[in-house]
Amino acid sequence: MGVSHMRKIFIIGIGAGDPRQMTVEAIERLNEAEVFFFLDKGDNKRDLVEARQAILDRFVERSDYRVVTSADVGRDRDPADYVATVADWHNRRSDLYERMFLDELPEHGIGAILAWGDPTLYDNVIAVLEEVRSRGRVAFDYEVVPGISSVSTLVARHRTSLNQVGKSVLVTTGRRLAAEGFPSDVDDVVVMLDAHCSFTTLDDGDLHIYWGAYLGTPDEIVIAGPLGEVGARIVAVRAEARERKGWIMDTYLLRRRSGS
Amino acid sequence: MGVSHMRKIFIIGIGAGDPRQMTVEAIERLNEAEVFFFLDKGDNKRDLVEARQAILDRFVERSDYRVVTSADVGRDRDPADYVATVADWHNRRSDLYERMFLDELPEHGIGAILAWGDPTLYDNVIAVLEEVRSRGRVAFDYEVVPGISSVSTLVARHRTSLNQVGKSVLVTTGRRLAAEGFPSDVDDVVVMLDAHCSFTTLDDGDLHIYWGAYLGTPDEIVIAGPLGEVGARIVAVRAEARERKGWIMDTYLLRRRSGS
Repeated sequence: MGVSHMRKIFIIGIGAGDPRQMTVEAIERLNEAEVFFFLDKGDNKRDLVEARQAILDRFVERSDYRVVTSADVGRDRDPADYVATVADWHNRRSDLYERMFLDELPEHGIGAILAWGDPTLYDNVIAVLEEVRSRGRVAFDYEVVPGISSVSTLVARHRTSLNQVGKSVLVTTGRRLAAEGFPSDVDDVVVMLDAHCSFTTLDDGDLHIYWGAYLGTPDEIVIAGPLGEVGARIVAVRAEARERKGWIMDTYLLRRRSGS
Repeated sequence: MGVSHMRKIFIIGIGAGDPRQMTVEAIERLNEAEVFFFLDKGDNKRDLVEARQAILDRFVERSDYRVVTSADVGRDRDPADYVATVADWHNRRSDLYERMFLDELPEHGIGAILAWGDPTLYDNVIAVLEEVRSRGRVAFDYEVVPGISSVSTLVARHRTSLNQVGKSVLVTTGRRLAAEGFPSDVDDVVVMLDAHCSFTTLDDGDLHIYWGAYLGTPDEIVIAGPLGEVGARIVAVRAEARERKGWIMDTYLLRRRSGS
């Protein structure tokens, strides 16, 4: 099969929430796509589908595009076997995209998947597309358009750097922070995917936290300060916001101020 | 002094090299600025000044802006005392910006500093502006506009994720990698600011490297493979490119493929 007959998919990073974080490249790619593939995560995340539609309404100049929306596959958020559960979820997402590409995208068609933030950071869409390709039932090529991550947005809002001069930064998950504690060999830790405010498990009195939720959206909330002083407030604000909106996306940087 | 009389500075992330990585927000802020502050790093990095001017030419609609260019302060790239040398460099850069803001920006004026990649990642401009503010000789407010980092661009080009599922990622410097080796508790390490190909000091046979230079520019080079197989080629290609162009900006991801 020649390249000209092959389906093409763009995985487009659309930024953390503010449509103004779209890049020129992302907008160009949006305008090349004939079909957009959306996953719908259910009623309480309908905001996210609407926000993606708003990006299309604002930036796509062609009127002949189609949006194909599938209900996303669910997964247990607190499984006993994390790796196996994620692998199963990954497989079912691959099934979903494979089916959508076969059914909804012509052999020479151009499709697009919109990814929040940066598709390369704690998002499985690249791995899922690699899996679909490796199965060999639908031939396509794909390209990744980087986006502004929630992490970049977080530290920009707090007007600080991700790293201290000459130091390392660890990017990790809430699950790992809770299991492993604050690392001894790094002073800056970015925590993603933390549904349980794992910073409350730490007792390091020297830690400073820079927290943000709904970054880049009108609902954006940012709180910073010594962890011991603002930690409880973040827990309360987060719970209230999640209850009110039905979902939350948040991330934070923990910084140990060191003398060295 | 009221807010309306205060100078305002935008620190604008302009992406890794491709002007199409400019965000809508970055373009809006460019168009608000009356004065752009450029640092000129000398003849062999004149490309970088020209690339910033090309961004202004492409995206700024107003014609009444000014560009103020100062010769950057130099620093020893291999100092005996790294921290003291960087602190001194930081102070002299603060002097430079303080002087430029006082001399070249009216009290109510809007200025902009263009930062390659993402200003929050291994760039000292935020810390320098905090230092200038703390000195109290020039009153200004500032805002950070996040950009697409060379790291996001690197992994997008290689069509991989920064992290493996549920795993952590360490972002570090060439200096630290050389001193500390590949960490035992992390499988993915992004290396920045490495003038010495510090990956050559590692002897881990399980490492895979994803390397890129001049990312996003017409000179972009990417190489990936098992470190033992492609490491020497990266060293040679990098030396040749740096010699030919007079400068290089590169970064890489080292990945240990683990069974767990």
